[in-house]
Amino acid sequence: MSDTLVLALDVGGTNARGEVLDEGLGRPLVSASLPTPYGDGEATLTTIERLCGQLMSGLDATDRGRVRAVGLGVPGIIERETGVVRLASNLGWVNTPVGDRLSEKIGLPVHVHHDVTVAGLAEHTLGAGMGTDDLVAVFIGTGIAATIVCGGKAVEGGLHQAGELGHVPIVAGGLPCPCGQVGCLEMYCSARAIGHAYARAIGRPGATSLDVVNALGTDPLADQVWSEAIDWLAHGLLGVITLLSPSRLVLGGGLSEAGDALVAPLRERLETLARVAAIPEIVTAQLGQRAGVLGSGLATFRKLGTGLS
Amino acid sequence: MSDTLVLALDVGGTNARGEVLDEGLGRPLVSASLPTPYGDGEATLTTIERLCGQLMSGLDATDRGRVRAVGLGVPGIIERETGVVRLASNLGWVNTPVGDRLSEKIGLPVHVHHDVTVAGLAEHTLGAGMGTDDLVAVFIGTGIAATIVCGGKAVEGGLHQAGELGHVPIVAGGLPCPCGQVGCLEMYCSARAIGHAYARAIGRPGATSLDVVNALGTDPLADQVWSEAIDWLAHGLLGVITLLSPSRLVLGGGLSEAGDALVAPLRERLETLARVAAIPEIVTAQLGQRAGVLGSGLATFRKLGTGLS
Repeated sequence: MSDTLVLALDVGGTNARGEVLDEGLGRPLVSASLPTPYGDGEATLTTIERLCGQLMSGLDATDRGRVRAVGLGVPGIIERETGVVRLASNLGWVNTPVGDRLSEKIGLPVHVHHDVTVAGLAEHTLGAGMGTDDLVAVFIGTGIAATIVCGGKAVEGGLHQAGELGHVPIVAGGLPCPCGQVGCLEMYCSARAIGHAYARAIGRPGATSLDVVNALGTDPLADQVWSEAIDWLAHGLLGVITLLSPSRLVLGGGLSEAGDALVAPLRERLETLARVAAIPEIVTAQLGQRAGVLGSGLATFRKLGTGLS
Repeated sequence: MSDTLVLALDVGGTNARGEVLDEGLGRPLVSASLPTPYGDGEATLTTIERLCGQLMSGLDATDRGRVRAVGLGVPGIIERETGVVRLASNLGWVNTPVGDRLSEKIGLPVHVHHDVTVAGLAEHTLGAGMGTDDLVAVFIGTGIAATIVCGGKAVEGGLHQAGELGHVPIVAGGLPCPCGQVGCLEMYCSARAIGHAYARAIGRPGATSLDVVNALGTDPLADQVWSEAIDWLAHGLLGVITLLSPSRLVLGGGLSEAGDALVAPLRERLETLARVAAIPEIVTAQLGQRAGVLGSGLATFRKLGTGLS
């Protein structure tokens, strides 16, 4: 089994990234990416088939023979056992047997995983979560999602949707969210929400959370927007910590690139607010954008009964 | 091992209850209870020793010889591996090696468990949670606490405090809680909070949540207090469901005796509010006050490597 390779893919609404990985999960043998056709399910399947073809064509004949499976990380509601994607609206899939469909096209077993779950699994096994079996990895970008690891296992949930932290309501009767609810956490402290708040504050449409981070300490409006967002993030994460008592909180996604400008005030807020829950270590993710692909590879090697455990 | 008996205890701030159980966990061979000396750690240890003595003296000599261990469910922060109770303020224990101290007194191995965790485990294994491996059991009484079962295992948390649902903040800057935080869930919808709200509404100090339930449909003030409490409970539980995606929600504790007057409107609120999370089955607990003792017995038989799995 030590000769096994997998095609590890991370398919988002904008891009599909892929790597050919061996079970050491170190440097990829081949990397590739393609833009994804937003919301068109059949076209997305074709894109994935092409990406797999591209990855295979980067290998010599011997290595091609070593590829045993495809791992696919996707945003949506997944039935891991069957490879059926119940809903992945950005990819255009509704009750689509993605695993079987792709397996027919590609001629290899295809394992379908939840993108955030496996990204968190990768951080747990190879990155910022190493050394603990009870962590919550929070990915903050356009939206907010979490991977919950309890006793070394990623929590999927009996209804297959665990980790939708961005849609935990934190303000009754609060801001409307595109999901249809009100007061969802991600309306207050996602990278997008922070960018929007700053754009409104300075009257410059298109301002981003990165602009906020870059202006910290020089623009009081940036300081204020940042501070309010971290207040809300602390409020939301205190609930998570109180419920799950993790040893470590791993912050990933675009916003985590702010590093200590995020971690230090968040830790301070949590320490000030919390009276019941113990505050876990708080660290930033280490694998960056590769987390999804590495997690997809990792989860697939585990399905094959090999690889890092 | 089929001859093994355990002394299963559930020690609260008011009473300590105990049963002698065989691994079938059916009818107890002996039952007993004693009042607990609130907040006095040494006296609590003595009370537990006496309760164990009482239970043993109800057995004949043959059965006494079959008792292999004591299981103790307590409210607090427990290190299960060592039997050290880090904090159980109602029982007067701070960093107390309860397992070792009692084991010396009683002459049997003593396993210390978290009371709510094992009560939830009992509901999962023997009660309203049978047939699913992913559930949240929410106990609503004076306070609110939860047992989270993921993939068949009760979540303890790396920092040993999982399940403190009552102290999840649901209103930023909300009502002060005796814990020192503000806006804790249990300030809005515990049985105590509901009783207090009704007492204020009707100007009768000492009114309880049971009074509210009994007046539903006849006293509009009771209807209003109940409705507001269920709004808050739904708001808080939507967060839990969104995060963990359980298959089933088990409602226990005193408030769950309201039965369908609680379950039906809670389900309705959740169905109205939720756009992302799937709503699990919602049922009331089945084991009543015995859940803690049964859970303590169950967890102890598991430690011994026997009993229901």
